Amino acid sequence: MDHAETGPGAVIGLGKMGAGMAQNLMRHGFRLSGYDVDPTAMERFVAGGGRAAANPAEAARDARFLLLMVLNAAQVEEVLHAAGALEALAPGAAVICCSTVPPAFAVATERQVEASGRLYLDAPVTGGVQGAEEGTLTVLASGSSAAFAAAGPALEAVASVVHRLGERAGSASTAKLVNQLLVGAHLAVAAEAVELCKRLQVDTDVLFEVIRTGMASSHMFNLRAPQMLAGDFSLANAIGVFVKDLGAVENAADSLGLDLPVGRAAASSFRKAAGLAP
Amino acid sequence: MDHAETGPGAVIGLGKMGAGMAQNLMRHGFRLSGYDVDPTAMERFVAGGGRAAANPAEAARDARFLLLMVLNAAQVEEVLHAAGALEALAPGAAVICCSTVPPAFAVATERQVEASGRLYLDAPVTGGVQGAEEGTLTVLASGSSAAFAAAGPALEAVASVVHRLGERAGSASTAKLVNQLLVGAHLAVAAEAVELCKRLQVDTDVLFEVIRTGMASSHMFNLRAPQMLAGDFSLANAIGVFVKDLGAVENAADSLGLDLPVGRAAASSFRKAAGLAP
Repeated sequence: MDHAETGPGAVIGLGKMGAGMAQNLMRHGFRLSGYDVDPTAMERFVAGGGRAAANPAEAARDARFLLLMVLNAAQVEEVLHAAGALEALAPGAAVICCSTVPPAFAVATERQVEASGRLYLDAPVTGGVQGAEEGTLTVLASGSSAAFAAAGPALEAVASVVHRLGERAGSASTAKLVNQLLVGAHLAVAAEAVELCKRLQVDTDVLFEVIRTGMASSHMFNLRAPQMLAGDFSLANAIGVFVKDLGAVENAADSLGLDLPVGRAAASSFRKAAGLAP
Repeated sequence: MDHAETGPGAVIGLGKMGAGMAQNLMRHGFRLSGYDVDPTAMERFVAGGGRAAANPAEAARDARFLLLMVLNAAQVEEVLHAAGALEALAPGAAVICCSTVPPAFAVATERQVEASGRLYLDAPVTGGVQGAEEGTLTVLASGSSAAFAAAGPALEAVASVVHRLGERAGSASTAKLVNQLLVGAHLAVAAEAVELCKRLQVDTDVLFEVIRTGMASSHMFNLRAPQMLAGDFSLANAIGVFVKDLGAVENAADSLGLDLPVGRAAASSFRKAAGLAP
């Protein structure tokens, strides 16, 4: 497919996730400009065919869509407002926010973006770096029909599944929050089960088969427990993600007056693993 | 199949699990005697074709196997020793212990049972009341080849899968412990996710589909979250099981000096749900 006629798009946040998504957009024919604070990320983007911008506003200038894959809500805020990316976008352009942000932030940002005459899609993703590189992410999306229409071709380039979670921003970020509560807790208890197995000297080959095929299975256990047992340290990359995302779950729980003891225990485990707690 | 020629078997512990297992043994042609402290359980067993015994020793008298489906290790101990069931069994008979017990208890009991000239199979099960009634339990089993040979026909009558986890008692109980840590934590965090969904007013139909098919899935979430959302109180039956089994996980963690924060948080949640903690 050639999307050159739709005018240029922009990607801000070219870390491992954003870089993979940008590559897939360009493979699908989109002309892209991009920005990241990290020069190495910019070089990789340019080597892949992207146009380097000196700042977020330059990246967004006259773009028909702006895909945001920055770290958190504070960076989304900074890029759109202080750095002027929102006002630089073409009128009617779509802001596709793939970063994980608090649901209330998504609601407020949609309001601001719509007030400026652009569209906003609340579009957090799952599927990790591998999904980003392969263009097989799952997008949890909510927003207006117009936002879905404007964002559709770009989403098709980066995802194999786009779940439509509602007509307004916020629903998708809420779904991502619930998703991360489960993924994070499953990952944390998988690590505990692996530790227990090691200490009890279980034959893990047979036991893991029992778990994978039985009541105790989870996607995260099945995927990650063998790596944990093998001491595969690439898993350490996930720690920062869950410190952040389970922290967001804790904030949501606090504001709702909810206990969520298992979610909080998992959050503490990730903070401890990251050296952020004793 | 007709197992009448193998001589009678015995089942002690005729609650919902034991009753289902006894029915399947009798369907497969085993003549059974049985004992339970609850007269209603005994009546159901007799109505199904079983022979009521006045006490554990009478149930076990000359039986070729004794299947134990009592509540915990203390009851296994009581039945085998104080109540005299072990000494009443035919020489060479198999004690098939399907109750969830601490691994060290299984090791010690195997030693005592073998010293008495009988065989011991450490054989905790998963699959719940439905699996017991349908004869589709999964058995996690460890023990000597002789114990497996003696217990085999009975296990085939109650289970669709028998996992062989080692040559000595203890391995199977250890596997059950790890299994219950995962199942209990997955169930507890599923309840937290459902609560979060309710409070955040998510469209759970779409979100549950996202979870079921994605990174956040677990067997327990997929099976139980829709029931939790519907307020299906049959789930309350599971609470006692996990108070007990996650308590055993905590004991094991204590004795190993392990933290297991997610497992402990799940244990606390079940105690709270059972009214055993504030």
